[in-house]
Amino acid sequence: MRGAVLYGPRDLRFEERDTPTIIEPTDAIIRISATCVCGSDLWPYRGINPVTQPTPMGHEYCGIVEEVGSAVTSIKPGQFVIGSFFASDNTCPNCQAGYQSSCQHAELVGTAQAPLLRVPLADGTLVATPDVPSGDMIPSLLALSDVMGTGWFAADAANVKPGSTVAVVGDGAVGLLGVVSAKQMGAARIIAMSRHESRQKLAREFGATDIVTERGDEGVARIKELTDGIGADSVLECVGTQESMMQAIRSTRPGGFVGYVGVPHEVELGGEELFYSHVHLHGGPAPVRRFLPELIDLAWNGKINPGKVFDLTLPLDQVAEGYRAMDERRAIKALLRP
Amino acid sequence: MRGAVLYGPRDLRFEERDTPTIIEPTDAIIRISATCVCGSDLWPYRGINPVTQPTPMGHEYCGIVEEVGSAVTSIKPGQFVIGSFFASDNTCPNCQAGYQSSCQHAELVGTAQAPLLRVPLADGTLVATPDVPSGDMIPSLLALSDVMGTGWFAADAANVKPGSTVAVVGDGAVGLLGVVSAKQMGAARIIAMSRHESRQKLAREFGATDIVTERGDEGVARIKELTDGIGADSVLECVGTQESMMQAIRSTRPGGFVGYVGVPHEVELGGEELFYSHVHLHGGPAPVRRFLPELIDLAWNGKINPGKVFDLTLPLDQVAEGYRAMDERRAIKALLRP
Repeated sequence: MRGAVLYGPRDLRFEERDTPTIIEPTDAIIRISATCVCGSDLWPYRGINPVTQPTPMGHEYCGIVEEVGSAVTSIKPGQFVIGSFFASDNTCPNCQAGYQSSCQHAELVGTAQAPLLRVPLADGTLVATPDVPSGDMIPSLLALSDVMGTGWFAADAANVKPGSTVAVVGDGAVGLLGVVSAKQMGAARIIAMSRHESRQKLAREFGATDIVTERGDEGVARIKELTDGIGADSVLECVGTQESMMQAIRSTRPGGFVGYVGVPHEVELGGEELFYSHVHLHGGPAPVRRFLPELIDLAWNGKINPGKVFDLTLPLDQVAEGYRAMDERRAIKALLRP
Repeated sequence: MRGAVLYGPRDLRFEERDTPTIIEPTDAIIRISATCVCGSDLWPYRGINPVTQPTPMGHEYCGIVEEVGSAVTSIKPGQFVIGSFFASDNTCPNCQAGYQSSCQHAELVGTAQAPLLRVPLADGTLVATPDVPSGDMIPSLLALSDVMGTGWFAADAANVKPGSTVAVVGDGAVGLLGVVSAKQMGAARIIAMSRHESRQKLAREFGATDIVTERGDEGVARIKELTDGIGADSVLECVGTQESMMQAIRSTRPGGFVGYVGVPHEVELGGEELFYSHVHLHGGPAPVRRFLPELIDLAWNGKINPGKVFDLTLPLDQVAEGYRAMDERRAIKALLRP
């Protein structure tokens, strides 16, 4: 089969790769219905995270179970399934506590930009939809595999409650789906921080009540202005830079909550500022598996439409164009169909 | 009157100071029944926080109201009252959210090692006990002014619940009262990290079920051993150094909670480690005022005896010896009687 392989900065190739097979009895093989390019794929694509050898890419996936290992009991061939980028057994103490992305047996799933995918720990990792979905539902179901689950975790970690005032730092797919999550959780006011017109528009469509175009300290000042000088109850940090993290912390009211899901790149938090900020800080790699049943239910019943973040759809063999379009910010997120 | 004044490293004098008077109509003057030396007083005493001018000292207090300003309505002369080191109006949005130490009109109370004290924002700051207490109750009531409230906040911020496994980093008065707090909140297991025999003994008396003498990475390894390799549900950080903070974060299970109340000194948290740790982080200067009514009730009824942390009692004019004894770790905490 042919799949995506990253060779170095901006050198993404679609080429022959080994067809995956069952290795462990707990594995499943999925025939991919759709996969996509993640904002975090751009870090190695841009050379910020160095690539030391040709690396298969892709960690977002949904599709039809093709084959299962002998120990798999809850997932069957023919089912349509969604899983997270972290395979997890869903039984260890960390999974039981709801932190499947810290599963004691976690394995990264990183070869999903291809027609077939091996998923380890299939029983713990994969969740089947009620039925095989229609094609128009697939983008929203695919989004649950990472971006929607990550935006949801940001809102959950930021303690969004009915009536909350929420600010979202970052207008990428995760930030935009953080808006969807905050709306779904009942936020009264959702301030999206964005300077891109198309993303502002989508943020408003998803439920943002205010748009702030300023960044850094000016962005913080605007959030304070909009919240009687206090700061937001909940701030979702969906970028992962020093500036975005400090913007999130400083935009939060004393006693408020920062949920951070942007993978940090050279972020250092000064203990003293954090101490006097009085914020709650929680985040990390989203335990998407925790949220999958609820999110599948919401998407299946049309309560959320996270598939709208895909503003570019390409055949899988044009995956390199998907990366280029996102790198150049011509697209928010590229969906790929094998 | 005479009170404590810090002139420079280890130069603490008991000397003539201005007798406080009502300045604002919202002030009260308290005749101090007891005050004490705080672990945080040792930072400037040791020269780690530089002292640029002769500085009156002391921020823990309880006593009898001597006089109130014309705008004070809820506090009356003759009442026995306790207040926090942060005066607060208790009405602003931050106070209403329970973060009185981030009150929009917060003022530090820092001249309490003296016979008389001016307390600003008396209505918001001071809480009266049900009656004038007997002398033997005064140490426990004094402790509520800071250390007990701070230990309680650490446990509250660390989400201690009935059945929790709790670790406490720091065996100073705050850490020891963190043990009291965790016990009172129903923790099933309380691991005190201490290498001082007298403090270990008090920790056990307060409810610690395990003692860990190792520090740093070895301390973390011991906590992991004691918790099936997972880490504690709740960790109370009661020191404020880089080592203690990292020890706390690394001792916490994924999804667990760090409550940190040690004032950070040159602490920097790496974003990436924090991200992958999956811990909740909350802390800051304790909003003692939030907890005062509940803590007064517990102490008044003998449910908690935080006064036990005072292992040295001196007349106020020997305040310098109180600092020396704590600096040299001969005493956990020195109580001073005017």
